[in-house]
Amino acid sequence: MKPLAIFDPHPRAMDLLFSPEDMRRLKSLVRLSVWEGSRMPAAQLDPKLPHAMFLVGQADLPEARLERARHLKCIINVEGNFQPNVAYEYCFARGIHVLGVGGAFGESVAEMALGMALCMARGIPEADRLFRQGKEIYGRASNQESFLLGGSEVGFIGFGNLGRALLKLLAPFRCRIRVFDPWLPARWLAEYGLTAASLEEVMSASRVIFVLAGATADNQAMIGKHEFDRLQAGAAVVVISRASLVDFDALTKRLSRGDVSAAVDVFPREPFDKRHPLRRLPNVLLSAHRAGSVRSVYRHMGAMIVDDMQQILAGLPPVRLQRAERETVARMRSMPVK
Amino acid sequence: MKPLAIFDPHPRAMDLLFSPEDMRRLKSLVRLSVWEGSRMPAAQLDPKLPHAMFLVGQADLPEARLERARHLKCIINVEGNFQPNVAYEYCFARGIHVLGVGGAFGESVAEMALGMALCMARGIPEADRLFRQGKEIYGRASNQESFLLGGSEVGFIGFGNLGRALLKLLAPFRCRIRVFDPWLPARWLAEYGLTAASLEEVMSASRVIFVLAGATADNQAMIGKHEFDRLQAGAAVVVISRASLVDFDALTKRLSRGDVSAAVDVFPREPFDKRHPLRRLPNVLLSAHRAGSVRSVYRHMGAMIVDDMQQILAGLPPVRLQRAERETVARMRSMPVK
Amino acid sequence: MKPLAIFDPHPRAMDLLFSPEDMRRLKSLVRLSVWEGSRMPAAQLDPKLPHAMFLVGQADLPEARLERARHLKCIINVEGNFQPNVAYEYCFARGIHVLGVGGAFGESVAEMALGMALCMARGIPEADRLFRQGKEIYGRASNQESFLLGGSEVGFIGFGNLGRALLKLLAPFRCRIRVFDPWLPARWLAEYGLTAASLEEVMSASRVIFVLAGATADNQAMIGKHEFDRLQAGAAVVVISRASLVDFDALTKRLSRGDVSAAVDVFPREPFDKRHPLRRLPNVLLSAHRAGSVRSVYRHMGAMIVDDMQQILAGLPPVRLQRAERETVARMRSMPVK
Amino acid sequence: MKPLAIFDPHPRAMDLLFSPEDMRRLKSLVRLSVWEGSRMPAAQLDPKLPHAMFLVGQADLPEARLERARHLKCIINVEGNFQPNVAYEYCFARGIHVLGVGGAFGESVAEMALGMALCMARGIPEADRLFRQGKEIYGRASNQESFLLGGSEVGFIGFGNLGRALLKLLAPFRCRIRVFDPWLPARWLAEYGLTAASLEEVMSASRVIFVLAGATADNQAMIGKHEFDRLQAGAAVVVISRASLVDFDALTKRLSRGDVSAAVDVFPREPFDKRHPLRRLPNVLLSAHRAGSVRSVYRHMGAMIVDDMQQILAGLPPVRLQRAERETVARMRSMPVK
Repeated sequence: MKPLAIFDPHPRAMDLLFSPEDMRRLKSLVRLSVWEGSRMPAAQLDPKLPHAMFLVGQADLPEARLERARHLKCIINVEGNFQPNVAYEYCFARGIHVLGVGGAFGESVAEMALGMALCMARGIPEADRLFRQGKEIYGRASNQESFLLGGSEVGFIGFGNLGRALLKLLAPFRCRIRVFDPWLPARWLAEYGLTAASLEEVMSASRVIFVLAGATADNQAMIGKHEFDRLQAGAAVVVISRASLVDFDALTKRLSRGDVSAAVDVFPREPFDKRHPLRRLPNVLLSAHRAGSVRSVYRHMGAMIVDDMQQILAGLPPVRLQRAERETVARMRSMPVK
Repeated sequence: MKPLAIFDPHPRAMDLLFSPEDMRRLKSLVRLSVWEGSRMPAAQLDPKLPHAMFLVGQADLPEARLERARHLKCIINVEGNFQPNVAYEYCFARGIHVLGVGGAFGESVAEMALGMALCMARGIPEADRLFRQGKEIYGRASNQESFLLGGSEVGFIGFGNLGRALLKLLAPFRCRIRVFDPWLPARWLAEYGLTAASLEEVMSASRVIFVLAGATADNQAMIGKHEFDRLQAGAAVVVISRASLVDFDALTKRLSRGDVSAAVDVFPREPFDKRHPLRRLPNVLLSAHRAGSVRSVYRHMGAMIVDDMQQILAGLPPVRLQRAERETVARMRSMPVK
Repeated sequence: MKPLAIFDPHPRAMDLLFSPEDMRRLKSLVRLSVWEGSRMPAAQLDPKLPHAMFLVGQADLPEARLERARHLKCIINVEGNFQPNVAYEYCFARGIHVLGVGGAFGESVAEMALGMALCMARGIPEADRLFRQGKEIYGRASNQESFLLGGSEVGFIGFGNLGRALLKLLAPFRCRIRVFDPWLPARWLAEYGLTAASLEEVMSASRVIFVLAGATADNQAMIGKHEFDRLQAGAAVVVISRASLVDFDALTKRLSRGDVSAAVDVFPREPFDKRHPLRRLPNVLLSAHRAGSVRSVYRHMGAMIVDDMQQILAGLPPVRLQRAERETVARMRSMPVK
Repeated sequence: MKPLAIFDPHPRAMDLLFSPEDMRRLKSLVRLSVWEGSRMPAAQLDPKLPHAMFLVGQADLPEARLERARHLKCIINVEGNFQPNVAYEYCFARGIHVLGVGGAFGESVAEMALGMALCMARGIPEADRLFRQGKEIYGRASNQESFLLGGSEVGFIGFGNLGRALLKLLAPFRCRIRVFDPWLPARWLAEYGLTAASLEEVMSASRVIFVLAGATADNQAMIGKHEFDRLQAGAAVVVISRASLVDFDALTKRLSRGDVSAAVDVFPREPFDKRHPLRRLPNVLLSAHRAGSVRSVYRHMGAMIVDDMQQILAGLPPVRLQRAERETVARMRSMPVK
């Protein structure tokens, strides 16, 4: 009999994640027990847990519950953020893989980040607004503030999945890239051609800065007044990973001086306050948490899930999904997807 | 005595083109005769011509005038487009180089083209408009039409300076790129990893299409109703080289169906008709001939000019500027810069 | 007081591994207890184990011994191959990292593999031999069997550290690369631009084949008569990871037909049998286990060790060294370094 | 009636140059008049010249002869070196293209140059020699002099077709590359990521030096005692373009000190003196003018010829073959192919 896999993917849905072909492959590998549209109720989940080899979803998994999941080999989070509702140490000690789909967002977020950076470097949305008002300025006169990304000084705050994906897209631009990431050794960054730097250096030396780090216990509001004051005139900041890293009041104040610009895809509360002054600044590009959620990304997640389930069933290590790390999973602070 | 170089760069200016360092190098190479702010009057130009080795500018140079320029070795057009006001055959027969700065625009236009393509693929300006109106849609619901450029089918119409520069930026996106360029052999394109295709194929098979060709006698309004009808739903067209290739009425009609989008940086007449319906379409991104005219581009031109003057003075071929080609220069139809 | 790190690196030595600068960094991080020139005797090791946070070396670590190493956080193998003398499950359950330096060899082995492939494609060593005998053949007549690596069909057997490093070097050659690696999903390989294939396909479809897999319980003598019979005339095989994958008698027989060639850096027993017929074949390139052991590789290992010790001391996951994997470490069958 | 094309390709042959498919294309474009096996006699050539549009070969073409070739549009040299037997100025003045196949050798020579560099960096041929003598040394002890190409300082002498092709292959090695090429501006080299340098700097600062320049009136024996004395211990020199750049006595003397190595593919006279001491040095890798003459290179030439003939027939500029340059063609000094 095929092993049991519990799918409790809310807020995702099965057909969002799996192509017909991947659904076929999935069914050839495991028996499926699926609950969609809401979190699987405990009354459903608990009797199945002792028989399951895979649990796909974000169910609460305290030690007591995991103890009953005697055949569990793998938990797969399909949100992208590990939450504190799992007894990770228990899993690690027993060799239960805890995997996440976070890596699937890299390409989509990187394309958006690059698009936003080019928008700011060249004033694309402003020029379109002026044109629609019949007030467009032609040619060189409209490019007083424009600059080429090619050859510019760039800064990354954080270098994980998003940074790796963005680095690939930036390769032809021959930028010098400084990275602030206190979780990574300087020489490891150097192997990617990156220069390790302090947060202050990144803020002051870069023309374009990308905020790419996940939310952790250590980086709440890390980019505040002190950091924004370091920005050089003409700098452009892309806030695209997690809003909690940024002090939005400080960002708004810095932008209101008018000499720097920002693109923002993530907000402290979503929907964002309708009366927040950020909404009215001309030098900000606003986007409603849209960077990662392109349709093909979800099918990419599904493919990764099927592949890694197949790996585990073959007695092999998973290679496509991201693993929760003993040292860092407890420090993660991203909020659940709504 | 140093050789004479006439600079008649209007509509460019000397300090737009030359950094202080390049101006110093220039002065060490040649005696300068400069006229700025307007085209150099014949009364000024004609007496100097017999002594000049270099002529930088877009002066009318019919055969009669060139005959008197007995020491002329090189004409440098600083607009970027070769005009029909030069007796090219005369120059070629006598070994007078006719060079242009067109290549300097590649990087700047390519960055803009990529930025515009990403704007359309991800709905960046529309999302910003909605956000400013307080009507933003969060996350996946806002991405119904979004797609990744990575892995998409791409089409190039023309593959010259702009195409080469854009190709570099697209390298990490792993796109299949079809090219329509009747001036280039299929196998030459294949060496760049490109697939030669007919105009119809490019229009019908591509998700993103870049119009990158210069204006020639053969391609006026080449992209019209028949071609736009070939577009697949969701296609995005970037019109960034010359407006004359495109039938703007056909483009406007095709866009008004709403299932494709376009970004337009060049217009049949500039300023563009204030009442043209294109200005009111939601699925167009408008830009007022801004793609090439970033400040650093002009200094890049200046550097190329100095380098190639030095080459010629050393008895070497110019390598940085673009040469007018005997076969094609007469077919060029770009309008002069205003 | 700084934590204790036991260094028992034999057959490596401290100054082989650590630059003066890395030695300084090491001393700033930990107290060192070093034994060189031979394996640290149990009488030395056992009393230190209960106090050590790091153990660098290949000591036998059965469960009984590990139980006494109450503060151990990390074991670092400096040979490159994980051996069966460690109670891995015990380590994984307790969160003791088991790390190895295998990744440090990638670049060095990849350069050698590429050099060997080019030697065979172009007959470099044979041409040199002929020249020294005064029998050289000039130009095209000497290139009857030569071919370009550029655009060739290439096969990888195994895609781990070595494959990744070689893939980078092959990028400009635009080869189609088929990979046989039963431990990896086809779609994961596809993300690297690689085509998953069976061993038979790799052998029959490739002009150049690289044997890049580590020795495992499953791949002993996997490439034998059946596989070598699949080779096309003109094929070239580079045996550079582990000799145990290859049936050397079958390889010798296949080579003696004269229509294929091989480069061999690893041998079933080293020193290799002085009378083995392989030594006398003209179409083999012989190298005495030289691919990985370039001086700078060892200092690279040292840098990785220092960086990951610093990560662990900071409560962060190691990122530079390779981790032993629960699923695969027990299947490894490489022999210890002598 | 189709235009006439005279093919006088000796020392090449038609079926060496043209695939069956290209021969078909050729016949669809032009009427062929072919002479093979020796240079076409004047008695054959002269009566045809007045009718020919294309002349493929290395015939003597003084002005008197060209005057009678009233319809000639294009001369194609299939050797790869422009010779002084053509009245180039006459051709340029009349718009007759003078093209050469030199560019076709780039990839083949670059692969050989890289293979030779890796051979020297890793002692591949020497290790093979020792192994065949039963005197092989295993592992690290054999790598005392070995170094990684990755990250090394590299020098190019000349940066034309060969340099461009080699640069592509070196991209993944992250070398700093200094270039001595007095025909090219420093900033043009910088756009390729290269550093312009004097010949002395290239010789003294580089670990691996590639001699890639064509023979000219200015560079005869340019690399002599003074230059070889600048080499650092451990340096490796690849002599692969033209022997005439190198003082072979100085090279031999420098090599006899034993602390540097060289790979040599071209010789002052070929066959090379059987008693020359270079043949007996252990630290030289010898190759009998084999770098460019791989079979597929000639078919590549043929493809380029057909493509450019088609361009010219369509009134377009040739784009695949290399053009003789007014300024430099007279300085070329490569000897004819025998």
